[in-house]
Amino acid sequence: MKIVIIGAVAGGTSAAAKARRNDEEAEIIIFDKDKDISYSGCGLPYYIGNKVKNRSQLVPRDAGFFKNKYNIDIFTEHEVLNLDVLKKKLTVKNLKTEEVFMEGFDKLIISSGASPVIPNIPGINNENVFYLRNVQSADRIKAFIKENKPKQAIIIGSGFIGLEMTENLKNLAIMVTVVELAAQVMTPLDKDMALYIQNYLKKKEIKLVLGDSVAAIEGEFPNAKVVLGSGQEIATDFVVAAVGIKPNIELAQKAGIELGASGAISVNKKMQTNFEYIYACGDCSESYSLITGKNFYRPLGSTANKTGRIVGDSITGGNLEFRGILGTGIFKLFDLVIAYTGLTEKEALKEGYAVVVCHNIKPDKVTYYGGEEMTIKAVADKKTGKLLGAQIIGTNGVDKRIDVLATALTFGAKAEDLFHLDLAYSPPFSTTKDPVMYTGMILDNAINKGRELITPEELKTRIEKGEKIKVIDTRVSKQYEECNAPACQDTILKILR
Amino acid sequence: MKIVIIGAVAGGTSAAAKARRNDEEAEIIIFDKDKDISYSGCGLPYYIGNKVKNRSQLVPRDAGFFKNKYNIDIFTEHEVLNLDVLKKKLTVKNLKTEEVFMEGFDKLIISSGASPVIPNIPGINNENVFYLRNVQSADRIKAFIKENKPKQAIIIGSGFIGLEMTENLKNLAIMVTVVELAAQVMTPLDKDMALYIQNYLKKKEIKLVLGDSVAAIEGEFPNAKVVLGSGQEIATDFVVAAVGIKPNIELAQKAGIELGASGAISVNKKMQTNFEYIYACGDCSESYSLITGKNFYRPLGSTANKTGRIVGDSITGGNLEFRGILGTGIFKLFDLVIAYTGLTEKEALKEGYAVVVCHNIKPDKVTYYGGEEMTIKAVADKKTGKLLGAQIIGTNGVDKRIDVLATALTFGAKAEDLFHLDLAYSPPFSTTKDPVMYTGMILDNAINKGRELITPEELKTRIEKGEKIKVIDTRVSKQYEECNAPACQDTILKILR
Repeated sequence: MKIVIIGAVAGGTSAAAKARRNDEEAEIIIFDKDKDISYSGCGLPYYIGNKVKNRSQLVPRDAGFFKNKYNIDIFTEHEVLNLDVLKKKLTVKNLKTEEVFMEGFDKLIISSGASPVIPNIPGINNENVFYLRNVQSADRIKAFIKENKPKQAIIIGSGFIGLEMTENLKNLAIMVTVVELAAQVMTPLDKDMALYIQNYLKKKEIKLVLGDSVAAIEGEFPNAKVVLGSGQEIATDFVVAAVGIKPNIELAQKAGIELGASGAISVNKKMQTNFEYIYACGDCSESYSLITGKNFYRPLGSTANKTGRIVGDSITGGNLEFRGILGTGIFKLFDLVIAYTGLTEKEALKEGYAVVVCHNIKPDKVTYYGGEEMTIKAVADKKTGKLLGAQIIGTNGVDKRIDVLATALTFGAKAEDLFHLDLAYSPPFSTTKDPVMYTGMILDNAINKGRELITPEELKTRIEKGEKIKVIDTRVSKQYEECNAPACQDTILKILR
Repeated sequence: MKIVIIGAVAGGTSAAAKARRNDEEAEIIIFDKDKDISYSGCGLPYYIGNKVKNRSQLVPRDAGFFKNKYNIDIFTEHEVLNLDVLKKKLTVKNLKTEEVFMEGFDKLIISSGASPVIPNIPGINNENVFYLRNVQSADRIKAFIKENKPKQAIIIGSGFIGLEMTENLKNLAIMVTVVELAAQVMTPLDKDMALYIQNYLKKKEIKLVLGDSVAAIEGEFPNAKVVLGSGQEIATDFVVAAVGIKPNIELAQKAGIELGASGAISVNKKMQTNFEYIYACGDCSESYSLITGKNFYRPLGSTANKTGRIVGDSITGGNLEFRGILGTGIFKLFDLVIAYTGLTEKEALKEGYAVVVCHNIKPDKVTYYGGEEMTIKAVADKKTGKLLGAQIIGTNGVDKRIDVLATALTFGAKAEDLFHLDLAYSPPFSTTKDPVMYTGMILDNAINKGRELITPEELKTRIEKGEKIKVIDTRVSKQYEECNAPACQDTILKILR
């Protein structure tokens, strides 16, 4: 059997390694148009910020490694130009020699990844405008910084890549302005959670422009500026565009492989496309939600690894099947950690759930051992009592709580189940009742015990509609004062003043 | 309704607070023979080691707090001398005034806690012999250290309290010797995992005597010594006995309340004793295992809080029921973190499971972001594929993995389920496939994919029985050398040399 794989990053190499582990005989070939393979895309911002010292740490493996360890042939700088699905043939171009040749396959795995969305604006191709796509694109940013010692940067987009870049550029003493089209940063989060990030960015002296677009990038370093849709002009030394990524599906689409509604390649649970001998995995393929069962596009390194391994097993006769994902994500922003899993409030409402929401603020461990507060926003379904999703922002122990909640969600946990978890307690690690347990207790009280909750948003709406509501403000004076401080100017609770 | 509670630490105060939240009218009274209430027993070693600076941090609440916030009357230094279960009456002694009086109740909660086991050896009552039981017992150790500036200590017992004391005394520049009767430290762990701790203690210059008992403690500071069962004598300035704890059940037993086989008070899922109006919770009550369904005694602060809340709900007509625990535990030993949940290999074998065991060594996060290795020993049932338990030793991220595994165990996860978890990945927090996922993959391969595993112990046994086994040692030379280093002298793998 001859297995050919397009793409040698997370999905493709995972698929290849698993296929080899299952089948010692198969011929396994990978083509990648890039120079680097099997690199850590998620590490790129930290490479730019010098947290990752050596390029080789991001690209620990080369084609020789895969040949030696797995007897897999990887051809880098080889672009697949065409796929003939019926004849089972690829047209491949060696980018170094310009040679074009045909390659047959018995089974094909498409793991062509994703590319940054390139905004269609004047100046986007200027020499001081960058994207984060692969190691070479990071090399270019590093080289620009080294050569020009820039003092200011504009980041277009405030998703996790934009925010990770914000931290890493700021750590290089570069003043950063983030321009975001939406009215909030990090749109995968609910607005009330994004507020924490926005307030924190101000504390960190990051300029933030919300609800505005970049209309044009003008001039070159050192005389460049960005013109916003609002007309405002901001001088900058360079620009990083991080407005999102889109699946690389051109080749597949041209070949007649079906795409899903999200625009990514449609696959079944065995990761097969509409041609049973052609599989897809990683950032070019569509996922589905473990909560709603519906298809969605959530390109993440963890999922690319997972779907790659499933393809590698599936293609060699194994019984692994994709079970869907929660879309769990996490990132660090200086000392802040932001994580999310499952549905947000706004997604849950859109899906028609009878939504119950709690905001649970608790220390990550006992305060005498240095515990610091985290905020867990959790969403549950009133009808079934089931947990639907969670968002957490804090400093320490956020990763632990999101993973516990993701695990609970995977097994269909009800809110009431969380209190019963036997989580590990000792003072350096948690509180006697873990924040996750309190979250379940609060939701369970709201769902089953008649202790209803109201969100600040809902309160605001109902007051604005003229409803007479008696509000008892139980904050201690310190909290009240903090909420009225300038750093907190966005806080919804201010309506209570 | 008049609710009377015996004991005002974790279980008793949790029960009282929950009862009050459910029932604004009930009269709630607590008696405690101690001076301090609602203190953090788990923080005591850190108080002695000055990690917790102020005593008040361990005892943040007093009787006044409970009166103001919950309208609960707590009487400290009041010992309950007798319980008449049929007349529903307590005989109570005010230890300050010596006054003895009767107190009636409609419902009674026994949360009398546990006490250190006091070894029956000569010298055990000497002035330089200590236990860790409550804040006052910690005060006494602190006072001894402050007054006498001791240079050396002997700790009897190597459970988590003994080992936490080891760290905290060592941090005060006191040379520590740990004497343990068993052939390994930390008997709740399997021996192969305890080895990691033993090797680490050596590195930290902690003297460790295994398989020996303390026969006598002779002399007083500064001329004290300990005589071991083996005859060896060790000079010491003071002794801390931490050989275990036993439930305080004398009052209950005398009153005719049933005890379980473990010796702790037997309760049903509503935490009721054999008298339906008498409940028990916390360290004096028996738990049951979520894995085996069998009763056991696992006194822990987290469980005391949990069972206290269940009693508080149950006693006021709520529907909360105890669902059993995994016996999840965690502690820190200098930079090492040791955690466990569910069954160990030895427990699983004893229960008759067809045990599959893996030892999975993985970094807690990507190595270019500072990842450090942890060892996850996981135990599964070959017949059902279900996970049975896990033990983890490492430096960072151990608490996260044990909590994810505890959550998975709670929902009856199979080993194969772990790979499918959608855990949060980014370089500062994990690897693209989390160590927990690898653990599941290894076990699943062994259970369902014909890739059997063998433990060093089993290999040793089979070689010793004369079985011809071809061993291929795939360690890289660095690992081989480490394993032959003096620090590693106990390692079972040495049989391969």
